[in-house]
Amino acid sequence: MATGIGIDVGGTKILGVRLIDGEVDHVSKCNTPSTGGPGAVIEAIVETAQQLLVPEATAIGIGAPGPVVPGSGQMGPATNLTGWDRPIDIAGPLGSELGLPVVVENDTNAAAAAEHRTGAGQGSTDMLALWLGTGVGGGLVLDGQLRRGKGLAGEIGHVVVQPGGRRCGCGGVGHLEAYAGRAAIEREARRRHDSGEKTLLVELAGTRRMKSSLFVEALERGDEIAGELLGEAVGAVGAAVADIELVLDLDRVVLGGGVANRLGPYFVDGIRRTAGRGFGHIDLEVVLAELGDHAGAVGAAVLALDTARGA
Amino acid sequence: MATGIGIDVGGTKILGVRLIDGEVDHVSKCNTPSTGGPGAVIEAIVETAQQLLVPEATAIGIGAPGPVVPGSGQMGPATNLTGWDRPIDIAGPLGSELGLPVVVENDTNAAAAAEHRTGAGQGSTDMLALWLGTGVGGGLVLDGQLRRGKGLAGEIGHVVVQPGGRRCGCGGVGHLEAYAGRAAIEREARRRHDSGEKTLLVELAGTRRMKSSLFVEALERGDEIAGELLGEAVGAVGAAVADIELVLDLDRVVLGGGVANRLGPYFVDGIRRTAGRGFGHIDLEVVLAELGDHAGAVGAAVLALDTARGA
Repeated sequence: MATGIGIDVGGTKILGVRLIDGEVDHVSKCNTPSTGGPGAVIEAIVETAQQLLVPEATAIGIGAPGPVVPGSGQMGPATNLTGWDRPIDIAGPLGSELGLPVVVENDTNAAAAAEHRTGAGQGSTDMLALWLGTGVGGGLVLDGQLRRGKGLAGEIGHVVVQPGGRRCGCGGVGHLEAYAGRAAIEREARRRHDSGEKTLLVELAGTRRMKSSLFVEALERGDEIAGELLGEAVGAVGAAVADIELVLDLDRVVLGGGVANRLGPYFVDGIRRTAGRGFGHIDLEVVLAELGDHAGAVGAAVLALDTARGA
Repeated sequence: MATGIGIDVGGTKILGVRLIDGEVDHVSKCNTPSTGGPGAVIEAIVETAQQLLVPEATAIGIGAPGPVVPGSGQMGPATNLTGWDRPIDIAGPLGSELGLPVVVENDTNAAAAAEHRTGAGQGSTDMLALWLGTGVGGGLVLDGQLRRGKGLAGEIGHVVVQPGGRRCGCGGVGHLEAYAGRAAIEREARRRHDSGEKTLLVELAGTRRMKSSLFVEALERGDEIAGELLGEAVGAVGAAVADIELVLDLDRVVLGGGVANRLGPYFVDGIRRTAGRGFGHIDLEVVLAELGDHAGAVGAAVLALDTARGA
């Protein structure tokens, strides 16, 4: 019997779970305060945790956006949280407020750990979790353990898949995220539309954010630009996966995030094909994530429970 | 006090060391038999081991070319050993002949372990060893442990650095080895020379193998093609290192092999520059290997001693 609390701190919402023996027992969420700076966000985290706390709980995990130095208890800098422009200790204040040990982990790493322990990665020894959302993130499990490095491991979104290629949101050139992130696909679709290559993607979205569900609709209606952009996205992910597979000899890739959820089989089949092309001997399962939006919070709880029992 | 024997089985020579407390106490080598098939090679390995055996020795490690399934005791297939076209158990026969436990490891992985334990990788936690020779190989140490995967980890020579680029000896396209391996550089220099772009590389080499020392000479004499090809080699290695760094968050890269030995500072400086360009935050030491030709044999001995004592 192990009970823990996990809280995923995102740019738009804070999502908490109470995890009992690997199962989500209760969920609590609220909007992330957009005013009031770090103080307001910390207050919202405390409130979310308090709603989930039970006497049996032994640890609290925080899934934090941005890099986290392992064991530091700090969160930030986080570009999607207003005013959070530096590392701030949150394990200390949360711990004294809530009376339990608090562990801070990078959110995409936490989500990878969750899929490995209780989701689509179960039984895998060496796994890459790839999150295709607004941007592209990742987490690695090697020899059954989350790979944290100095806090930056798994930054797969910024590997170069096309030297001299498309510009990434980070300023770099030819990065995976510039081809496979939702925001980058939207940017490129609008650029082409503006230059005369009309696409349903822009006609359907208008001035609103181009959701992943719209990618599906445009594909199904045979839109050429959508086919091209999503084909490039799949190719880019496949190429990155093939290279990582060569270096690390993985046994499974778990695909999650908004884009993967909407376009699951399209991505899974395409990546199997593309990743296999590179070297021939690739023997790798490619599967979809199972925990959806809960992965970050579940993983934070799992990792906090590990730390609390000295694992 | 720990004494072990390590034997590196290469395509041209078999090199053995007696390792006492991490120091090479004695070296023995012979040419690799090119006739007589696997039987002749195994006999030569036994003979080399016997010359190094002392009563204090507790384990024998073999550094084998090609993939090795961890714990299998098998070596092969090995394209550079005549007639060795399948995995063959060598731990069994060698063990009974020599009366000691025998461990088989991939040679580039063994060399990485050696540099980590007794060479340029000492003190590093997360290290990539990159061997620039006829081909390009690698080995990874993560969290202080050699990363073996299912036997293929560290195959960095075949990551794609230039989609649609130069053809690799393996048949793939745009692989790192196609830009940074000695044989590939020679191939490209001859191709260009034949098509009219004259280069000292070919003029100096004639029909003989183009040695790494010749790269140095041509560079020093300002040969344009040599400058271009070696610039591309450095760029390719830098790009691959930057991507691996992003995914794994390493702290050190150790460069070894014939090409790196001859062109050490040229590569080290170039890679520091190129790898840093990709993402900005890269904080990584790039250093030259220290153990030279002994690395594979030393590493095989180190890993065999680890296994013998159950580490």
